[in-house]
Amino acid sequence: MVITELAELSGTPAATIKYYVREGLLPAGERVGGNRTEYDDSHAHRLRLIRAMLEVGKLSIGSISSVLAALDDPDAPIVHTFDIAQRALSRDSVTGVSQGSAPALERIDGVIDRAGWGDCGDNPGREIAARVVDAFDRAGYPLPDSYLDAYAAAAQHVAEADLGAIAELDDPTDMAELMVVGTVLGDALSSGLRRIAQAYVTTERRIS
Amino acid sequence: MVITELAELSGTPAATIKYYVREGLLPAGERVGGNRTEYDDSHAHRLRLIRAMLEVGKLSIGSISSVLAALDDPDAPIVHTFDIAQRALSRDSVTGVSQGSAPALERIDGVIDRAGWGDCGDNPGREIAARVVDAFDRAGYPLPDSYLDAYAAAAQHVAEADLGAIAELDDPTDMAELMVVGTVLGDALSSGLRRIAQAYVTTERRIS
Repeated sequence: MVITELAELSGTPAATIKYYVREGLLPAGERVGGNRTEYDDSHAHRLRLIRAMLEVGKLSIGSISSVLAALDDPDAPIVHTFDIAQRALSRDSVTGVSQGSAPALERIDGVIDRAGWGDCGDNPGREIAARVVDAFDRAGYPLPDSYLDAYAAAAQHVAEADLGAIAELDDPTDMAELMVVGTVLGDALSSGLRRIAQAYVTTERRIS
Repeated sequence: MVITELAELSGTPAATIKYYVREGLLPAGERVGGNRTEYDDSHAHRLRLIRAMLEVGKLSIGSISSVLAALDDPDAPIVHTFDIAQRALSRDSVTGVSQGSAPALERIDGVIDRAGWGDCGDNPGREIAARVVDAFDRAGYPLPDSYLDAYAAAAQHVAEADLGAIAELDDPTDMAELMVVGTVLGDALSSGLRRIAQAYVTTERRIS
């Protein structure tokens, strides 16, 4: 298809498509004849991924570029692509506090240890979770370990569902795409269902 | 204590404290003598809650006002205060899409039904979760029911932990405060731990 058709199909203006090509996010089309450049389904697919990262994940062009580079590296294991995507998605994240304190990081390492998750290296989730521990402390409600462990058990449950959905796909590009889309949307899904569950548990426990 | 002491203790400027009093967020101090107004610990406590809602929950003054009104109503059951707080916290939320589609809302009602959560009325979480279902559809990865149900089970697990922590408190103001702080911070905690769990499960399942 020509660029106007790709623009129509993907809902992305032709000028934007050309910008993505210049930035290296999208492979150039194939020159056929003097003035004509052909695009195919792989371009449409890649555009869908770029838009998901931009619109749902709110990633910068630079972050998208690093995720796509990992994705396009035939030697990169999927776990590495996942890591790159998570880092990109976590960058401007969450609690608005600069850094987790050393005691909070230690507490999260305890959670990781008790959950049997082994060495998580510098997974960005460790920093996010530590900042939350600090924020609860500052608000005057220090969290007991049992609370953190319950959240960890639930996190493993949703991670199993995430990876189960990913493992059902065959195409590595699809797998990475679902990782990125799922990492962002899964947080929102957890948040919504947690609100309903809280209302249920509140009624059930007759807290009034 | 006088207003300068309250300002010092709470880290909130005296002018801001006066603004909160004018807006009805904070009870006025007690006039003692001609020029002197006395504040006590209840003011310091209320300021801490206002700041948590402003800074952690990013609530507007109007939303904070409605949460505090529910909190100050001696006849309001805690489940009602919780509902008001959730609505305030969900207002500018999450997926950036306007409304859940009817089929997506129906799917979430199925999840609620299978989870045994009964009638959740117009809990804001229902709308959030439906929008996520729509967003996955649009991205080309429709979610199976098993995925949604796994998330629901995890949500119930964290909600039990949330309510368990709240039920250990005696003071209704503390309980409501922890609900507000916990609703926001719990989402961030889930998000962080989920990233670590994903890395663990990815390695465990040898997805490479």
